[in-house]
Amino acid sequence: MQISDLADRIAAGDRRALARGITLVESNRADHRKAALDLTERLRTTGREALRIGLSGTPGVGKSTFIESFGLMLAETGLRIAVLAVDPSSARTGGSILGDKTRMERLSRHPSAYIRPSPSQSHLGGIARRTREAVALCEAAGFDIVLIETVGVGQSETVVAEMCDLFVLLLAPAGGDELQGVKRGIMEMADLILVNKADGDLKPVATRTCADYAGALRLLRRRPQDPDGFPKAMTVSAVEAAGLDTAWAEMRALIGWRRETDHWTARRAAQSRHWFEEEVRRGLLAALTEDPAIRAAMADAARRVAEGLDGPDAAAAAMLQDLRHRPAPG
Amino acid sequence: MQISDLADRIAAGDRRALARGITLVESNRADHRKAALDLTERLRTTGREALRIGLSGTPGVGKSTFIESFGLMLAETGLRIAVLAVDPSSARTGGSILGDKTRMERLSRHPSAYIRPSPSQSHLGGIARRTREAVALCEAAGFDIVLIETVGVGQSETVVAEMCDLFVLLLAPAGGDELQGVKRGIMEMADLILVNKADGDLKPVATRTCADYAGALRLLRRRPQDPDGFPKAMTVSAVEAAGLDTAWAEMRALIGWRRETDHWTARRAAQSRHWFEEEVRRGLLAALTEDPAIRAAMADAARRVAEGLDGPDAAAAAMLQDLRHRPAPG
Repeated sequence: MQISDLADRIAAGDRRALARGITLVESNRADHRKAALDLTERLRTTGREALRIGLSGTPGVGKSTFIESFGLMLAETGLRIAVLAVDPSSARTGGSILGDKTRMERLSRHPSAYIRPSPSQSHLGGIARRTREAVALCEAAGFDIVLIETVGVGQSETVVAEMCDLFVLLLAPAGGDELQGVKRGIMEMADLILVNKADGDLKPVATRTCADYAGALRLLRRRPQDPDGFPKAMTVSAVEAAGLDTAWAEMRALIGWRRETDHWTARRAAQSRHWFEEEVRRGLLAALTEDPAIRAAMADAARRVAEGLDGPDAAAAAMLQDLRHRPAPG
Repeated sequence: MQISDLADRIAAGDRRALARGITLVESNRADHRKAALDLTERLRTTGREALRIGLSGTPGVGKSTFIESFGLMLAETGLRIAVLAVDPSSARTGGSILGDKTRMERLSRHPSAYIRPSPSQSHLGGIARRTREAVALCEAAGFDIVLIETVGVGQSETVVAEMCDLFVLLLAPAGGDELQGVKRGIMEMADLILVNKADGDLKPVATRTCADYAGALRLLRRRPQDPDGFPKAMTVSAVEAAGLDTAWAEMRALIGWRRETDHWTARRAAQSRHWFEEEVRRGLLAALTEDPAIRAAMADAARRVAEGLDGPDAAAAAMLQDLRHRPAPG
């Protein structure tokens, strides 16, 4: 299929074309990369914008159940929702946190929902670009909401926060009054903290945990992109689908305020700028390992340095000169 | 002065020439960088190797007192010792941890010792290169020992560990049985842990703390570069100059073993390789901000991306193409 055809079909909301487009942006092959860039550029002109929600939470907090309940609630109101995952851990295990659609069985069967299994990818840099492009394809396909899920470990939250309009932290009720070791940096990225499992025996604990987080949030420095009362902590029960409507109302209130005050636009602009700069840096460094001729030259120079034939700095300076004079490939 | 003359004088052990050489490698000016590279390359041929000791410890553990006592002990045995500092924090305050030589007054006056105040530098990458080059100049000047001091905060330990033959962690006696929040990664880099202030009322606490660290070290995975019993924890008293001879004997035992087993050579080779690769990466990225034409092109492209005129990935791809076709400067 021509890329222009694929773009047209994605813009027309064709699911199979969307899946094919996402597979294309996930590929590492040079010709696929070129086609993927062509595809995303063509689709930029649709001008469609979904609400991008980042959702982070450690394993066991009930992320799948939450996405299923929350997604179904939105889908029932007529909103179209796409679910993507950023899962650096799957790179290690070869598995995938969204590989099994039975995790969200009802949502995956809903005609207004689209769930894309997480690719088994290598490093975070690559995952970031592929996820951003997949998000862009979902937006172009006309989804109203793109939910980007990540496991709350390592740096993936930062990556997801840099590509979403709203960052939600899902937490479990904590025994004792400790804050579950949530890192300050993660807390500072959150727009909404949802303490899940506020049902049955855990309800009082969830309420107490929520109060603890609300207190912790009040201690953080006020961010310009927040109206009064945000970031906010609330309790929800994904299994009982309780509190989800209130959480959604809060999200809409926050996003509405940010749209009115131009913080929405400013954040998207800052994110685009960030990813542009990040991609240039990544591309420059990638040439060192991906270009066979450069890789061989690097290995040879490194060997001479290790053997003491050349000094590391002189060898680096020579290599940098060499890289600048090298003709562009292809 | 010609660089060749400067090199000859440094190799002859001229202190003023050494100081001038270090000032040269600390400079950011392009012509100075070129001269500095020329200088270090010329001095590589002396083939002299000092024992490079990295010393890390948080403020308050008694690093200055330790360096003064330890350095004087070595100097009294006829060894020539140079002291350098890696201090990323001084970049922020504009101050310097070694700026005041009165901190090590007796050592700084000893004819066999050379203390170089820490430069107020910008970021860690630049500090790393300058420190490595200063170490190389001290080696070429004929010092037997180069001690590289760093404050035990942030990433500077990793940088120092990557440029020394021996990494010593200086710690204070801890109340309670916690391990003072020393990060596991730092523990894993240590060849020797010295619990300071084992004097007066603190002696029993220091002994207990030392036993705790010895226990913690035994739990770490055995490293191939260690003979039996290493890494080791010991108590010292810098103010009473107690235990320093034993510590020095342990350092010599460890280094002697590593020399015999070729781990010394392998480590230096791996470090040279690491710094070569790091300098290439740093140089590639530095061009983005240091070359005025590239910086302007980046700013212009970033503006277009932020305004939504171009997509971040397409703009990055175009910039990478442009960078590859750009003629080399100068």
